[in-house]
Amino acid sequence: MNEVTITKEQLDAVLEIANNGLFTANNTWMLMATAMVFVMHLGFSALEAGFVRQKNVVNILFKNAMIISIGLLTYYMIGFNLMYPGFEEDASQKFIAFAGAFLDPGADYTPAAYAEGAYTYWTDFIFQAMFAATAATIVSGAVAERVKVGSFLIFATLLVAISYPITGSWKWGGGWLDGMGFYDFAGSTLVHACGGAAALAMAVLIGPRKGKYTAEGIKPIPGHSMPLAAIGVFLLWFGWYGFNGGSVLSADPELVSFVFTTTSLAAAAGAIGAFISSTISFKNLDLSMVLNGMLAGLVGITAGADVIAPHFAIIVGFIAGAIIPLSVVMFDKLRIDDPVGATSVHLVCGIWGTLAVGIFGKGDFSILTQLIGTLSIIGFTLAFSFLFGFLIKATIGLRVTEEGEEKGLDISEHGMHAYSM
Amino acid sequence: MNEVTITKEQLDAVLEIANNGLFTANNTWMLMATAMVFVMHLGFSALEAGFVRQKNVVNILFKNAMIISIGLLTYYMIGFNLMYPGFEEDASQKFIAFAGAFLDPGADYTPAAYAEGAYTYWTDFIFQAMFAATAATIVSGAVAERVKVGSFLIFATLLVAISYPITGSWKWGGGWLDGMGFYDFAGSTLVHACGGAAALAMAVLIGPRKGKYTAEGIKPIPGHSMPLAAIGVFLLWFGWYGFNGGSVLSADPELVSFVFTTTSLAAAAGAIGAFISSTISFKNLDLSMVLNGMLAGLVGITAGADVIAPHFAIIVGFIAGAIIPLSVVMFDKLRIDDPVGATSVHLVCGIWGTLAVGIFGKGDFSILTQLIGTLSIIGFTLAFSFLFGFLIKATIGLRVTEEGEEKGLDISEHGMHAYSM
Amino acid sequence: MNEVTITKEQLDAVLEIANNGLFTANNTWMLMATAMVFVMHLGFSALEAGFVRQKNVVNILFKNAMIISIGLLTYYMIGFNLMYPGFEEDASQKFIAFAGAFLDPGADYTPAAYAEGAYTYWTDFIFQAMFAATAATIVSGAVAERVKVGSFLIFATLLVAISYPITGSWKWGGGWLDGMGFYDFAGSTLVHACGGAAALAMAVLIGPRKGKYTAEGIKPIPGHSMPLAAIGVFLLWFGWYGFNGGSVLSADPELVSFVFTTTSLAAAAGAIGAFISSTISFKNLDLSMVLNGMLAGLVGITAGADVIAPHFAIIVGFIAGAIIPLSVVMFDKLRIDDPVGATSVHLVCGIWGTLAVGIFGKGDFSILTQLIGTLSIIGFTLAFSFLFGFLIKATIGLRVTEEGEEKGLDISEHGMHAYSM
Repeated sequence: MNEVTITKEQLDAVLEIANNGLFTANNTWMLMATAMVFVMHLGFSALEAGFVRQKNVVNILFKNAMIISIGLLTYYMIGFNLMYPGFEEDASQKFIAFAGAFLDPGADYTPAAYAEGAYTYWTDFIFQAMFAATAATIVSGAVAERVKVGSFLIFATLLVAISYPITGSWKWGGGWLDGMGFYDFAGSTLVHACGGAAALAMAVLIGPRKGKYTAEGIKPIPGHSMPLAAIGVFLLWFGWYGFNGGSVLSADPELVSFVFTTTSLAAAAGAIGAFISSTISFKNLDLSMVLNGMLAGLVGITAGADVIAPHFAIIVGFIAGAIIPLSVVMFDKLRIDDPVGATSVHLVCGIWGTLAVGIFGKGDFSILTQLIGTLSIIGFTLAFSFLFGFLIKATIGLRVTEEGEEKGLDISEHGMHAYSM
Repeated sequence: MNEVTITKEQLDAVLEIANNGLFTANNTWMLMATAMVFVMHLGFSALEAGFVRQKNVVNILFKNAMIISIGLLTYYMIGFNLMYPGFEEDASQKFIAFAGAFLDPGADYTPAAYAEGAYTYWTDFIFQAMFAATAATIVSGAVAERVKVGSFLIFATLLVAISYPITGSWKWGGGWLDGMGFYDFAGSTLVHACGGAAALAMAVLIGPRKGKYTAEGIKPIPGHSMPLAAIGVFLLWFGWYGFNGGSVLSADPELVSFVFTTTSLAAAAGAIGAFISSTISFKNLDLSMVLNGMLAGLVGITAGADVIAPHFAIIVGFIAGAIIPLSVVMFDKLRIDDPVGATSVHLVCGIWGTLAVGIFGKGDFSILTQLIGTLSIIGFTLAFSFLFGFLIKATIGLRVTEEGEEKGLDISEHGMHAYSM
Repeated sequence: MNEVTITKEQLDAVLEIANNGLFTANNTWMLMATAMVFVMHLGFSALEAGFVRQKNVVNILFKNAMIISIGLLTYYMIGFNLMYPGFEEDASQKFIAFAGAFLDPGADYTPAAYAEGAYTYWTDFIFQAMFAATAATIVSGAVAERVKVGSFLIFATLLVAISYPITGSWKWGGGWLDGMGFYDFAGSTLVHACGGAAALAMAVLIGPRKGKYTAEGIKPIPGHSMPLAAIGVFLLWFGWYGFNGGSVLSADPELVSFVFTTTSLAAAAGAIGAFISSTISFKNLDLSMVLNGMLAGLVGITAGADVIAPHFAIIVGFIAGAIIPLSVVMFDKLRIDDPVGATSVHLVCGIWGTLAVGIFGKGDFSILTQLIGTLSIIGFTLAFSFLFGFLIKATIGLRVTEEGEEKGLDISEHGMHAYSM
């Protein structure tokens, strides 16, 4: 007798609450992930500040504070609609398209109109905007201690507003690389190798720091604060839970927790890999190598964090970490001066991580396609960076004066000291 | 044949699970927001520590560690019930009421008895308690490098336990300002201008640091560590996602994600505003201005983060940031010495943000009502602060001895150094 | 006429969405808690780095970077299956069991197969793995400034891979202490007193730092950076919301918010307790005592954060904080040198917190059972640590050379400086 006849309204009401609960949980996770990716900007700031000399600390902090700000604003203005342009279904190339400047605040962004149950329009925008700004940040470490502030900011703006969204659209915007089966879960290539390629181009164009490569050999220039660098790396690891975990694009329990596991194990294995590799190579227990090894492991697992089993994630991370000391030595031999090792961590391990999907990924992945994808995006970014880097160099110049570099950029560019101790 | 007759028990069971999922998602977000607002206390500690001289670093850290602790405990004892007193419906004034000391641990705080689906009683308390403690923290920067520890702690206790909850009750407790349509989403006035007004009163009462304003002019006293200040500002930005995002008081996907977007864009625009304004004013690339500009943008958008469209959020943040260099110069001309710029960031931009709701807010907002609201709360806080600040000054004194100030408060008040390097 | 007949498929579909929403909210919280516990590793790194001398900073950071990495990997390899072995129901002892090496990536870890609605298999693993690594980190502070890197890492590996999971299994794995009614919500004993006991054993075995205890008395050796220590403690407090809040093992709104409240109030009361106690004892306003007092309050409430009422949580935290200065003096009188006070914070207050459940806990708790539980686990850990610590000492040695200690471990063990200023 306690049977009830349910009305359509009742059924719909229950269904709406149930859908709303799931939608809210998904969206909340995506926003937490956004906040954690924001923390990566603090992580990069602290890491880069720790790895440069005391006389250039204000400068690197200034650049990082400006990049996140410029990055968010330009992504709002053009980046988002360039990266997610809604390619025409029949476009044969899907190489570049643009959905128009600015977000349209009058548009119908209600969940019903926009999302398919996982997050809102605003969540989509702000999560992707945080991502975009990281690519530019990677460059700042590589050109540290000698780049003109204004020139760097112009280049970073172009990279984050134009180059990154275009190459990003090829995969995440549904472009031609997506069509051919290229896989890059959270951006080993789309974010890290992209930022790393730009870093490489700019490091080559600007040349090494004064006194780095001399007739007597390569002079190590130690960073001014290892605690700052360590804080930076730990915060980057923390933020990576949002970077990789948020790339699930929902709070799917199985998938997000799997990604947390592979991400954690790869970072840990990266530290061990770098520890072993650097201890063999350099015969000392090198903290900066272990820290960069963690980052290497994180960059390495980023492309396949959702499709690589935990035991393979350990292998991917370990190899990424082990590569770091060798890669740092290689770039030094090539006389490409990168004060924080950004090229080794983000470009080299970004390529490795992208290829690793073809080797260890559970699913239908081709190492050749992975190679095509990573080379295409790196190639475009290198070309873009060399072109605009060269134009900047030829006009307003990339590099501070020799005297300014000697004094330090804090005084020559900013007129202030990082510390008064 | 697979049609089923659903029983009332079955329907209720499904409904309970659905409701519980949504409730859990909402409550989880509010607790994450609480934890993020906690991080703001670390942000303030690092920022203020970075902006003072090396000889006063232990002192500022000590004050900040004590404030969060005193703040949470006094809010438990009286603040919460003073701020949310449950004003009588027919109370003509709704100016002050008190629901009794302490939380009542025997009361029925089960979700069914307390919340309306968004969070529990305990979540309500601890989220609001974290907020309360921030108001007192704002003061500590303005009186840094010369205030007696004991005197400051007495003042901070009175502010957080009595003054802040009373003015807070006028709006968030359902008091007279709420009744007249005043709007302050997350506290541009209720938290920031309130803390900023107390900071102003105390900075006036205590007088400038020795040697700041001399016959030869205004002497800049640079902070001792820019990396510490930068870490502080980035952590404050991170915490602000909880501060503004949590002020939605649920995890409503549309609203929280909108708030994340406006908050991010305003912070970014604040940095750019301060960058342009300070570069024009001072002809150098001033990192501390850009950092304070970020905070200015955040304070500015706080009152209307849920009702100001993204493109207007950029304008609000930009203006807030651009104001900072001018405001800092103005206070210096008035010989009001504020080592960290707390008055400019929290009071001036708090007022601006509150008025901005009347200008840009989508909805039925009146700039006059906004003005009345912000002036009322600032007026009360100034009166309260001058009264109790004066009483403390007249009895136990506000300021350390001249010799103590010279030596630094770390030695004179704490007998220890911040660094042994 | 808008009555509908619901099919079994429709009912199941609604039910699945509802269940999925709740499951997703629960799992998301557990993952956020995991990320926050990860931040505790940064907190420990910064705290310990701040409390040691400048010449040993690289060393302590190196150890902490390695511990989290080794901890995660060994927990993957053996720890998890040793701590949650699935004791036989009829096992009379439930003292030790092992479910086999490595996670089994081929197993069916789908939510349906594994969890009972709160989280996935991977969440379970990674949350517990983060916990495990904290126990080893506690040791590194106590033996700082004189331990050989290699020897420490071997000991830490044994502790986190074998000792911690065995004692942990006695309660959380459903072992004999669980069977007799011992209660330790989030690990006052299982994590903190365990880590503290290992720290004590190792501090005794390795002996005090050169010059600490002399004929003229006890020489204070101040840490090199109070800002670093303060950042560490605030980050630990933040991370503790995940540590205690995550120990609910779901996002249960009532319970998690209650735990947030007791955790916050105990930490605040711990600061006040240490402030009063140290001001009476030492006649100065000691920042390091207030910071350790916060941690003491946190450790103290950890065993009963879910069953101790807020007003009692304040008492528990206050007493924990008040104990700290006395405990630090006591260990110094015993000539047990612990540079960061880890034994006082984690062992002494871990015991106090465990007993406090028997005094203040709402429910059926016995102080005698609590005492048996904490002494058993401390006893086992001490025996394990003395045994393996002694074996390491007798073979490869625990301590760096006198010359290495004099120079500092940064140079003698790592060949680099923490700062170039």
